Amino acid sequence: MRGRGDRFEAVLGERGLDRFLVTDLTNVRYLTGFTGTNGAAICGPGVRVFLTDFRYTERAAAEVSEWEIVTVTGDWLAGIAERLAGKVGFEDDHVSVRTFSKLEEKLGESVEVVAAGGTVEGLRRVKDETELALIAEATKLADAALKQTLENAFVGKTEREVADYFEAKVRGFGGTLSFDSIVAAGPNGAQPHAEPGDRVIGRGELVVFDMGAKLDGYCSDGTRTFATGDIGDEGRKVYETVLEAQLASLDAIRPGEKGEDVDNVARKIIGDAGYGEYFGHGLGHGVGLDIHEGPRLSLRSDDVLAANEVVTVEPGIYLAGNLGVRIEDIVVVTDDGILNLSSLPKDLTFVD
Amino acid sequence: MRGRGDRFEAVLGERGLDRFLVTDLTNVRYLTGFTGTNGAAICGPGVRVFLTDFRYTERAAAEVSEWEIVTVTGDWLAGIAERLAGKVGFEDDHVSVRTFSKLEEKLGESVEVVAAGGTVEGLRRVKDETELALIAEATKLADAALKQTLENAFVGKTEREVADYFEAKVRGFGGTLSFDSIVAAGPNGAQPHAEPGDRVIGRGELVVFDMGAKLDGYCSDGTRTFATGDIGDEGRKVYETVLEAQLASLDAIRPGEKGEDVDNVARKIIGDAGYGEYFGHGLGHGVGLDIHEGPRLSLRSDDVLAANEVVTVEPGIYLAGNLGVRIEDIVVVTDDGILNLSSLPKDLTFVD
Repeated sequence: MRGRGDRFEAVLGERGLDRFLVTDLTNVRYLTGFTGTNGAAICGPGVRVFLTDFRYTERAAAEVSEWEIVTVTGDWLAGIAERLAGKVGFEDDHVSVRTFSKLEEKLGESVEVVAAGGTVEGLRRVKDETELALIAEATKLADAALKQTLENAFVGKTEREVADYFEAKVRGFGGTLSFDSIVAAGPNGAQPHAEPGDRVIGRGELVVFDMGAKLDGYCSDGTRTFATGDIGDEGRKVYETVLEAQLASLDAIRPGEKGEDVDNVARKIIGDAGYGEYFGHGLGHGVGLDIHEGPRLSLRSDDVLAANEVVTVEPGIYLAGNLGVRIEDIVVVTDDGILNLSSLPKDLTFVD
Repeated sequence: MRGRGDRFEAVLGERGLDRFLVTDLTNVRYLTGFTGTNGAAICGPGVRVFLTDFRYTERAAAEVSEWEIVTVTGDWLAGIAERLAGKVGFEDDHVSVRTFSKLEEKLGESVEVVAAGGTVEGLRRVKDETELALIAEATKLADAALKQTLENAFVGKTEREVADYFEAKVRGFGGTLSFDSIVAAGPNGAQPHAEPGDRVIGRGELVVFDMGAKLDGYCSDGTRTFATGDIGDEGRKVYETVLEAQLASLDAIRPGEKGEDVDNVARKIIGDAGYGEYFGHGLGHGVGLDIHEGPRLSLRSDDVLAANEVVTVEPGIYLAGNLGVRIEDIVVVTDDGILNLSSLPKDLTFVD
């Protein structure tokens, strides 16, 4: 967490804020290192206060450094309110209407609160070396688990069984899951957010496998689509189109590039192949402590890429009732392009 | 979900609300059956509208009945706003300040919004037969997994290994986890929210095992504390005190009883034994779609128990740096007492 409080303080200065109240637990973790379920951080010029309750005093002492640790014993919001002063930014996108109204009642008259959600998330976009190493390691772990899952074969097993096998491997390697894995065979692959079910995987099907591991809070995210035998002309055409779109959009990534433009590279290739309406989601998203964070690669994105951001690149084509294909890598934006963290081959791979 | 919309509509009538906007996904699921990650429900006299986006149109059709399904294609909040009218209750404890402010901008002039968080949660306290059956089944499943984990022995394994074994069994039986299991041996048991770590479980230790399974969205919750050999006089005294407190508070539960009073039954026994200051949490909580919901059994609770509510009863004593004991059952409040869903013995059980 070294230096994160200082970077944050600099942003407060630019915005004319005297204090910033951070209550979102992921943002609190990012700034202070605290991993418990109740905590808040108050930052200001020379001010670094971390607040928690008695349950987490011990954990805070072990995890939080560079921030003064305060155990609030009475009313939680009162404990926060008495430490706020001047113009105070708060996370309007995370604080509920009710909590905000209770907090306001407890604030001194000289305190002015300003909606400032997204500020810590902005800092989180650019990763430091420790973060990059964890995401790379989590990706390696997930890829190794997927490799073993392939060796264990798909055909004759249910989607759920295949997903369970993968997830047990991730845990066996010391990771946890970034999200519930997707194993979607045949027509189920046409649902981008399918849940693994009781459908037995047959021969000649496309199987979308979207999975990620988490290490020390940091997520990986990757997708491959496998074939369990001959998938026919349309299957092959869809696969080749997605792969071409994926490779071209990877090539387009560099600092200064717009998320919207990178999305458009993939969208144009898929559109030209006649599948434009079957690519119904954005091209990719940032990954870190959250599985979905900034920057976004999508038609609606105003984000401009910067070095050391980590994004997924995951075009897909979904033909309802028939099949789906998605290919996803997770990459670091470097000074002149990308470092691709994903290691599994992308040519159509056949699985028993 | 049958009848839940009607019960909800009756509550709106009592409060003089024309519409109620439900945005918390667990509350949406409770009312409509929808299990996806984007949905909202609008209820009013004769009005049952469920809203989602294109990703979930198919799932909504499969899961949601008795509610008109609307797929919002443009702006999400505008799609909601145009369906609100009159005096509208909203979940102020779940809606963020930012979302609320955006929603307000889109509302017609005749719409008046009223903070009404907790309303659906109030309905959720009393379970119907389907819900009770799922919670009972989840409890059985978790207890069976714990039984097999005991047979696999503790001594010489790390807390993490024991927890992993249990969690794999839960999955093997077709459940998921209600929460990350706690396996806390020796002094780790003194932290009520310990995470299983690399500590190898030795002989003569008390091991707190807090675990739950989830079936079809419904949680179980249970704790036993085991001994891996002779735990000494103090260990035995603490165990007997917690058990006495647990049995006495179970006896005190019936409809009409106050959560505060039931908590006090356990607190008095633990206090009289000289451990009052080492029982630092409430006695119990409701369980359902959430692992923690109403009613609360605690000193600060105003809740009055009613038949078919499901609560945990989990007194504990935590001696920092030394040991911890917690014993927890999950029970249904019946017309004249309780139905205890937990099946594992509570006399001190020795494990290899």
